[in-house]
Amino acid sequence: MFSKILIANRGEIALRVQRACKELGIATVAVHSTADANAMHVRLADESVCIGPPSSRESYLNIHQIVAACEITGADAVHPGYGFLSENAKFAEILEAHGITFIGPTSEHIRMMGDKITAKTTAESLGIPVVPGSGGAVDTEEDAVRTAEEIGYPVLIKATAGGGGRGMKLARTRDDLIEAWSTARGEAAAAFGNDSVYMEKYLDKPRHIEVQVFGDGEGAAIHLGERDCSLQRRHQKVWEEANSPALNVEQRLEIGEICAEAMRKMKYRGAGTIEFLYENGEFYFIEMNTRLQVEHPITEAITGIDLVHEQIRVASGAGLSVSQKDISFSGHAIECRINAENAATFRPSPGTITHFHAPGGLGVRIDSGVYQGYKIPPYYDSLIGKLIVHGRTRVECMMRLKRALDEFVVDGIDTTLPLFQDLIANQDIANGDYDIHWLEHYLENKANS
Amino acid sequence: MFSKILIANRGEIALRVQRACKELGIATVAVHSTADANAMHVRLADESVCIGPPSSRESYLNIHQIVAACEITGADAVHPGYGFLSENAKFAEILEAHGITFIGPTSEHIRMMGDKITAKTTAESLGIPVVPGSGGAVDTEEDAVRTAEEIGYPVLIKATAGGGGRGMKLARTRDDLIEAWSTARGEAAAAFGNDSVYMEKYLDKPRHIEVQVFGDGEGAAIHLGERDCSLQRRHQKVWEEANSPALNVEQRLEIGEICAEAMRKMKYRGAGTIEFLYENGEFYFIEMNTRLQVEHPITEAITGIDLVHEQIRVASGAGLSVSQKDISFSGHAIECRINAENAATFRPSPGTITHFHAPGGLGVRIDSGVYQGYKIPPYYDSLIGKLIVHGRTRVECMMRLKRALDEFVVDGIDTTLPLFQDLIANQDIANGDYDIHWLEHYLENKANS
Repeated sequence: MFSKILIANRGEIALRVQRACKELGIATVAVHSTADANAMHVRLADESVCIGPPSSRESYLNIHQIVAACEITGADAVHPGYGFLSENAKFAEILEAHGITFIGPTSEHIRMMGDKITAKTTAESLGIPVVPGSGGAVDTEEDAVRTAEEIGYPVLIKATAGGGGRGMKLARTRDDLIEAWSTARGEAAAAFGNDSVYMEKYLDKPRHIEVQVFGDGEGAAIHLGERDCSLQRRHQKVWEEANSPALNVEQRLEIGEICAEAMRKMKYRGAGTIEFLYENGEFYFIEMNTRLQVEHPITEAITGIDLVHEQIRVASGAGLSVSQKDISFSGHAIECRINAENAATFRPSPGTITHFHAPGGLGVRIDSGVYQGYKIPPYYDSLIGKLIVHGRTRVECMMRLKRALDEFVVDGIDTTLPLFQDLIANQDIANGDYDIHWLEHYLENKANS
Repeated sequence: MFSKILIANRGEIALRVQRACKELGIATVAVHSTADANAMHVRLADESVCIGPPSSRESYLNIHQIVAACEITGADAVHPGYGFLSENAKFAEILEAHGITFIGPTSEHIRMMGDKITAKTTAESLGIPVVPGSGGAVDTEEDAVRTAEEIGYPVLIKATAGGGGRGMKLARTRDDLIEAWSTARGEAAAAFGNDSVYMEKYLDKPRHIEVQVFGDGEGAAIHLGERDCSLQRRHQKVWEEANSPALNVEQRLEIGEICAEAMRKMKYRGAGTIEFLYENGEFYFIEMNTRLQVEHPITEAITGIDLVHEQIRVASGAGLSVSQKDISFSGHAIECRINAENAATFRPSPGTITHFHAPGGLGVRIDSGVYQGYKIPPYYDSLIGKLIVHGRTRVECMMRLKRALDEFVVDGIDTTLPLFQDLIANQDIANGDYDIHWLEHYLENKANS
């Protein structure tokens, strides 16, 4: 087991990882920019090293400085948290070259999944369902119709050379398709000087469902069920649930096992998340994140397994502490991401927290790096804490969330807490009836009303 | 279901009950003395009523005022918490006479278990194991020897008219007994003018183990496993664990079922705790508490069941939400009672909390009625919060407790947090190897060193 771990991150996740290290009896090193000298992750670490000015590029993304901090402190491993250098294959390589363990997958796997095209072909070859499509360019109207019939309407025609939606056409029927065919090619030619197009199945109202996987790097792997992260604003997750209100137990175990089996074939090491769009009972691979996710605590809540403990175990060569048969899912969990932002305008709200009081009681977990009197610097993302609530059922979980939100006091800055107060009172949310567009529409309607 | 519950208590338990009410969608009424106007249970309640001056006798124990508060606010039920009026049969009767539901057992059962002699005979008649003894007075040395052989050495000779240890003699062998016999009778005669003595089995190093039971009042009852509360100072519990490190699963289920079966026979209603001394594989009934215990959260942690929800359900006539087969025990939980007292002298330390920051993260629960800036009044018991930690194993739980204690900040007053820092580092505690005398001896040794 490691004797000292450097945590190459800040905020709540730095504290989260630190907690796991302490629970395993491992000494911790915090790194911080000059703006974070008073941060909680610095105050609670065994040692800390200042690695640069406020700019992330010169501090939390500064590989040279972080490696130097490892050497100064004698850290034998680095946990990257999420964001920053957590999916930087070069960082992993440089650490390993210095004899320091990167707590994460191999650089090869990080790179493979970092490239979205390689990720998709890899996923497909491992038996993970992907969005069906033409595979390559479609040259004639006849081929287009045949392809559409194979993959099922609605379909999207997309420019091979394209991006940003230009040359993209949606066809819900055969007539639509025939009508759109020439237009799409013409727009593609005009926009990119290349009229080559391909086709993909179009998802109307998908949910975002992701499967948590874990591998030991030797061919053993497990899944820990799924999370539903459909409630997003500008592709940022806002509210996450486990299990998904949309899946039944058979679907859960089936997609979970597909993902775990893929990880076995890859000999994947560490924590990973396989993200899908989900519609009408089908899963469609989006991407794989080769790191811990922000929303991992809801998986911990329903499984009782500390994912950061497992990451550290696996990285140390001790293997997974559990096998698939040991894992059961108990109750329901919801996470709310609390940002220092105005809940209506989403304008960031850095400044001093004049009063902070977290809710307590049964089934309530707080992961936060802030405290009363703490001044939130304006340089980093606005996540100041996560409220994670666990109940025996989704209904119990929702009621508990409501009362926990009522108790939560953060004064001196704006936060997104009022947004969650609104969501918890909404009937669609109560029914678990939402897709990835729901929150954007909801916010739009609210702004216009 | 009730529409409004008045919580006849203060501090962390008032808040605890309030949380459960909110989670069930029930309006809450706080009552408070003039000293508690700024208390958290008052701030967070839907309504609050001042019921008297600081003195408990004139406020929290003032039945007349509390009934008046119910009538003013239209509360249809009262939750008494623990302490104060929670085991006052008269209070329960008066409430019922006013058409207000007392959330607890019948006044008859409160009274039965409140009288220690009736409690013991009742327990025995219900099949609960009690301390074996002579039953009545022992008149001759011959009878004494025969009785001792029946119940097994060591035995205690106790004055029938006695109390306070006078006339009490310990005999570990037959020779001891014969030697002590005349002395005991002589001392009894001298002290009480009555030389009648009886005999009981003496327990050398018992543990305090208690079983959580729950009945619906109609003859259905369950147990929720046991808690080990052996770590006590002056009969005050300090640290509690579930499950007990001393029991195996067969013992747990056996004593649990004995207790549940007794509750079925009694048609007991609501939450109850049957307390035992435990030594060498045997349980000996001490008493039954007909209310929620301070340490109920460790049972909640390992079962996932909200005991206050169940209390409210049962009192409303909705019955238990679970049956025995639904209950399983997951992992290990420890509770530390954090008092506003000096950790070495145990002198109470009322005053203003200048900084308060509770630990967070996986497996950590805080039940506390204080906040930063709160002034602890000098009138009530010194419990300011409970730290409850849950882990998959006892070892994980202990490591998590250690890191949670490291994070806990309470400034401005003395607290017992440093005592737990010491205990967590102690080898006996690590081994789960302690009895009801352990903590007193430990504190004595520490004071003398």
